[in-house]
Amino acid sequence: MSFIIKKKASRSAARRGILQTNHGSIQTPFFMPIATRGAVKSVSTDDLVGLGAQIVLSNTYHLYLRPGLPIIKSAGGLHQFMNWSGPILTDSGGFQIFSLAKLRKVTNKGVNFQDDVDGTKHFLTPQKAITIQKTLGSDIAMVLDECIGYPASKKKATEAVKRTTAWAKQSKKIKTGGKVFGIIQGSVYQDLRLKSLKEITALNFDGYAIGGLAVGEPIQKMYKVLDWVCPKLPVDKPRYLMGLGKPEQIVEAVKRGIDMFDCVIPTRNARHGMFYVYKNKSLRGEFYQQINIKLAKFKTDQKPIDKACNCYTCQNYSRSYLRHLFLINESLGWRLATIHNLHFYLQLMERIRKSI
Amino acid sequence: MSFIIKKKASRSAARRGILQTNHGSIQTPFFMPIATRGAVKSVSTDDLVGLGAQIVLSNTYHLYLRPGLPIIKSAGGLHQFMNWSGPILTDSGGFQIFSLAKLRKVTNKGVNFQDDVDGTKHFLTPQKAITIQKTLGSDIAMVLDECIGYPASKKKATEAVKRTTAWAKQSKKIKTGGKVFGIIQGSVYQDLRLKSLKEITALNFDGYAIGGLAVGEPIQKMYKVLDWVCPKLPVDKPRYLMGLGKPEQIVEAVKRGIDMFDCVIPTRNARHGMFYVYKNKSLRGEFYQQINIKLAKFKTDQKPIDKACNCYTCQNYSRSYLRHLFLINESLGWRLATIHNLHFYLQLMERIRKSI
Repeated sequence: MSFIIKKKASRSAARRGILQTNHGSIQTPFFMPIATRGAVKSVSTDDLVGLGAQIVLSNTYHLYLRPGLPIIKSAGGLHQFMNWSGPILTDSGGFQIFSLAKLRKVTNKGVNFQDDVDGTKHFLTPQKAITIQKTLGSDIAMVLDECIGYPASKKKATEAVKRTTAWAKQSKKIKTGGKVFGIIQGSVYQDLRLKSLKEITALNFDGYAIGGLAVGEPIQKMYKVLDWVCPKLPVDKPRYLMGLGKPEQIVEAVKRGIDMFDCVIPTRNARHGMFYVYKNKSLRGEFYQQINIKLAKFKTDQKPIDKACNCYTCQNYSRSYLRHLFLINESLGWRLATIHNLHFYLQLMERIRKSI
Repeated sequence: MSFIIKKKASRSAARRGILQTNHGSIQTPFFMPIATRGAVKSVSTDDLVGLGAQIVLSNTYHLYLRPGLPIIKSAGGLHQFMNWSGPILTDSGGFQIFSLAKLRKVTNKGVNFQDDVDGTKHFLTPQKAITIQKTLGSDIAMVLDECIGYPASKKKATEAVKRTTAWAKQSKKIKTGGKVFGIIQGSVYQDLRLKSLKEITALNFDGYAIGGLAVGEPIQKMYKVLDWVCPKLPVDKPRYLMGLGKPEQIVEAVKRGIDMFDCVIPTRNARHGMFYVYKNKSLRGEFYQQINIKLAKFKTDQKPIDKACNCYTCQNYSRSYLRHLFLINESLGWRLATIHNLHFYLQLMERIRKSI
């Protein structure tokens, strides 16, 4: 078994387990730091190991365009290229094509798009998306899906579900040697979500992602989608909520049975001087806050960001010094903040696991 | 004795020794990484310890203006503020006032200047320059000097020597609890250099710096100044050549009897993707080269920057990956390059010490 559920919560749908990959096993539920272009911004792979990161997520769209596959292939794959020996999940590029690229044309065969940076034209098919991820050496590859924003008309959402299923079928033709996950679309429409779920799970993927959420919809609508979808997902396959989220949202999603998360906010906020701090040891209510280190009130504050935190940053540097680093735009500050925020998120997941 | 010479070279004026400070002793000759604003750009103090850095240099001018003394004082001094437990040398601010600030007026009492960033006006006296460094907790403080550029008229150089001596006398009135070094000026004029040397050494400082070099003069003129000055400096005091330099220049200066160096080039070049690499194990001729990692020829080069180098960067990352990091402007690249270049410089100093 490549996914083992070790424990189920008694009062919620939360589950604790182990997901096995070609590069080691991962305790679930887990959070994936984002290494968009083959680097978690401002930290080294040693930093990630020190933080206890179990897996990272890289973006196929970005890596395919820059540095490009021949360069990563010459290194022997993405693990070797970025010097990370743990598991890597790669997205399919779909989300970026639909949000970043100049979109040319979408057909059942695939999608024509133009690089948002240099204008070069590309054609991506579902098979090619998997083949690219195979070349990267991805431990968990994602199928190409049509990811639509919020709000979306029922017509548009229906088409996206149809195309996502058609593409998922074509994706099955390629074997990667690793895991391949299907993606369920359907916006915030119950019938479409259940239709997508039925069609995608019928294809028997190694895991299932819920896509098209955390794209701007009200948070209660997102929880509702989880309430529709999660109980009908196969229990023995890992479940991944793409792009989520804030700590309290992760807690809620785990309760509904989600096992996997990724989000840019801990690392992006870090680079803007926003530090996460626990207010108490519970996972309920406002159990944490964010500190904007640039505020004048931290001028001479010699305390660490969080005196209860044992991350490298809190063990070595004061709020006063971190504020100084951000005010002078010093990249050491970005690294120290990234280390702290990832520590917060990874510790959050450990607390969640222990609570199950 | 706070400075002990342990060995003298037989064929040159090079000497090897130990300089004792309030924060530990330092093997001489040595190189000081530059922590301008209380951080060696893009690396942590743990990185510096790992590299074997013995001492860092911080800039009084920058720290005085931002974050300002009250903030550093509230931390208990610069060591605590930046979390560095080793020795710190601070410059007097003179060089920056004469090169960066909007200069208002120079008198024998001191210098009026305007912050180059926010336009605030300040008045710095020789006594105040030492008092500021005392507040910072500097292990080696430098006197305020009048640092002139190259070329300088004899008239201007004469005035600078006169004022530097007058200021040095006033500096002697303040005790710091650490070392205070005098600075010898005189541009490229032999008589002025010797006059300055005589006047400054008569004041009996803890060490002597040669200032106003590496400011654009032809390199042979710089060596000539060292040839005039070094033989007449007291043998039992450490000698510091401010702002130098390229590896081969450091080798030449050590041969003339210099013990201490600082320079931005290894760290600044690192942030531009320029990596130092040894060509051979000698310290003669073109014993090293610089690699511009952005060049296309490194696209798929899976070798480390230097296969003989045991720095963290060379042990973990390929040229191909480092090139990618620089092309996407990723701050991890700046850190990895800084680690490598500082390792190169610190290893250079170790090779030099072993050669004596």
